[in-house]
Amino acid sequence: MTPGADLPAAGASGGISRRSLLTGSALAVAGLAAAAAVIGPDSTADATSNRALTFRGPHQAGIATPAQDRLVFASFDVSTGDRTSLRGLLATWTKAAEQLTRGLPIGSPMGGYLPPADTGEAAGLGPANLTITVGFGASLFDHRFGLSSRRPAALEDLPSFPGDAIDPTRSGGDLCIQACSDDPQVAFHAVHNLSRLALGTAALRWIQSGFGRTSSTTADQQTPRNLLGFKDGTNNLLADDVGAFDRHVWVGDETDQPWMRGGTYLVARRIRTHLEPWAATPLSGQEDAIGRFKSSGAPLSGTREHDRVDLEALTSAGVMVIPQGAHVRAAAATSNGGAKILRRGYSFADGVDPATGELDAGLFFICFQKDPATQFSKIQANLSLNDALRSYLTHTSSSLFACPPGVTSGGTWGESLFANH
Amino acid sequence: MTPGADLPAAGASGGISRRSLLTGSALAVAGLAAAAAVIGPDSTADATSNRALTFRGPHQAGIATPAQDRLVFASFDVSTGDRTSLRGLLATWTKAAEQLTRGLPIGSPMGGYLPPADTGEAAGLGPANLTITVGFGASLFDHRFGLSSRRPAALEDLPSFPGDAIDPTRSGGDLCIQACSDDPQVAFHAVHNLSRLALGTAALRWIQSGFGRTSSTTADQQTPRNLLGFKDGTNNLLADDVGAFDRHVWVGDETDQPWMRGGTYLVARRIRTHLEPWAATPLSGQEDAIGRFKSSGAPLSGTREHDRVDLEALTSAGVMVIPQGAHVRAAAATSNGGAKILRRGYSFADGVDPATGELDAGLFFICFQKDPATQFSKIQANLSLNDALRSYLTHTSSSLFACPPGVTSGGTWGESLFANH
Repeated sequence: MTPGADLPAAGASGGISRRSLLTGSALAVAGLAAAAAVIGPDSTADATSNRALTFRGPHQAGIATPAQDRLVFASFDVSTGDRTSLRGLLATWTKAAEQLTRGLPIGSPMGGYLPPADTGEAAGLGPANLTITVGFGASLFDHRFGLSSRRPAALEDLPSFPGDAIDPTRSGGDLCIQACSDDPQVAFHAVHNLSRLALGTAALRWIQSGFGRTSSTTADQQTPRNLLGFKDGTNNLLADDVGAFDRHVWVGDETDQPWMRGGTYLVARRIRTHLEPWAATPLSGQEDAIGRFKSSGAPLSGTREHDRVDLEALTSAGVMVIPQGAHVRAAAATSNGGAKILRRGYSFADGVDPATGELDAGLFFICFQKDPATQFSKIQANLSLNDALRSYLTHTSSSLFACPPGVTSGGTWGESLFANH
Repeated sequence: MTPGADLPAAGASGGISRRSLLTGSALAVAGLAAAAAVIGPDSTADATSNRALTFRGPHQAGIATPAQDRLVFASFDVSTGDRTSLRGLLATWTKAAEQLTRGLPIGSPMGGYLPPADTGEAAGLGPANLTITVGFGASLFDHRFGLSSRRPAALEDLPSFPGDAIDPTRSGGDLCIQACSDDPQVAFHAVHNLSRLALGTAALRWIQSGFGRTSSTTADQQTPRNLLGFKDGTNNLLADDVGAFDRHVWVGDETDQPWMRGGTYLVARRIRTHLEPWAATPLSGQEDAIGRFKSSGAPLSGTREHDRVDLEALTSAGVMVIPQGAHVRAAAATSNGGAKILRRGYSFADGVDPATGELDAGLFFICFQKDPATQFSKIQANLSLNDALRSYLTHTSSSLFACPPGVTSGGTWGESLFANH
């Protein structure tokens, strides 16, 4: 059945001309120029947490931004070999993302005879702290777009780690969009509309939704609990610590590709958590595996959540207070040559694993760093061998994207990549 | 690798005795008796919308309750043929569900040497308006539990409808749990812990998560938008209208099975929405297909959302204002012999359809009624032939459950089913 073929020929809002049924993509781009926000926020918006965040600046939003509650992460493959189309898509996405960040539709409804520019499901929901972050996969720098000389050395495929069970169909991609918001419908709407704008230029490869942030990224955020039931992210890098971000997150002058200055590298790993054996583990075993107390989140060497993690502490019997295999020990900077990362992951629950009848749930781990090889990969190599948690976890996807710097006034995503080139 | 086999032998909170690693199920039940809420709400709870709803009453919670924002719906197959175990599970679930509804863990952490009774990921989140609703599938009334004489005539498998593409692995089941909350982690936690309590008695069959309610169920709720971008549920039955609920939702004296009095029947249909052709449809075509204006939600025969839907109205040219195929016409009670249902569905987004690269998203439709054959099935038979929306939709799952009446003081779910029997 042809979609729409059975639509009535006339109605109160006018008849339908099939000739005017242009592609959504072309119309939506046109709609951006129209700029008018015909469907805007209404009184259902929650004023307390429904702010519009800043889209433009030296760094992209959604990285140092206080972690929002919900995630929709999408990967795309570019379906044209046309460099101009790729640049056009990035320009179109930039304008749309800025509108969406403001809580506005990406274009006007365009009158009765044309498809609406915006799909409309976020009308009335407000900006809900939406951020949209773009990233470039290594494959974007192959022969297709003349970008091979611009590929950063750091954008090297992540190595395989012991225990990995990576599904390539939910890994990688030419482009990624990370949409974070305090309202899942707002995050979905962003990916929905960006994917529609990409029709003919880039196609969705995979999507992962997340429903609970698993890290704090500013000092005033409460530390959330992951699906293991533990507070997660207590010792995360905090955006309040500008120096730490310059040392560990933002690409600086050390890069071989100046267009990446101010950018960062995003690692995404879908980590299936085997909740059933975890739940059958004694509390003391869970706490020893993490290195923290479950209720308070305090390190086993302390009594309050933010007490220092003392990896040297010994019991009166001379036994390590934080056991050898504890996650906090294996993940600690001091165990990994000083390596630190900005964690910004989300819990996921994707139903039941048909093969086992167990919950297909866990952590969609996202981290940002200036050099994946000496930060994420160094830490993960250690965790894959020495983390007591490892037998409860299976990494089922793995992706690395280069996030370009922020968008300047009047500029577009990736402007530095294409500049003078 | 044996889960937990590499856990350290000793730590600050004590060593691990493998002998004490009992099954989670037995411990959790024991934990219920302990009753103490060691991990309780903390200051992260949002006081404005974080209430504990009432669990016990003449009807189950989660039906007339104002629709919460998030859903986790789980189906289980009972894995034992033992009637006593089934009754035991329902009793255990009842106690746990009452604790969870209060925002409390299902049992104490039980000291350091035993697995925690509660998995812990909802600690600090508060009750978040959680409701937990149980239902019985037709298969529960087969030979296994001696319940065949108690099967209501109304609990007959739904018929096939034109265009159905039902996946049996995400349909049906012996038992269902509908967990609704304003916090997705609270809803997940409820299903997670109830499934853990079922270990050895019932196994997860399928789970569906939903992130945005698609109906109002009380007059003071704003009408939300579905993924088509339209306000959905404007003319829903409202819990404020007690007479309407008695006429259309709650099973009364007409039932052949007195144990169902005060209960209702739950229909769940996973309706994949083909968002790409929908988005390419002109606004007027979308509005004619629905029978309402997209921005305001007003019927095409009116100007405000709650204006009466006038199916007889004609334009000055003598054409029907609300077209023949409009969804509001095909779904209207007057088009279906007076049949009405209580809609209580949620939007879903399950990533990318690998077969097409399109969004696997849509509506997890849930409705409640006293007689599925003359309510849901009658309406759906009409929609499947006469609804202009039908070419944008594919029904990919179909389930029917009998929801028993509410839990009396001191009683358990299904008490009337087993009484005098």
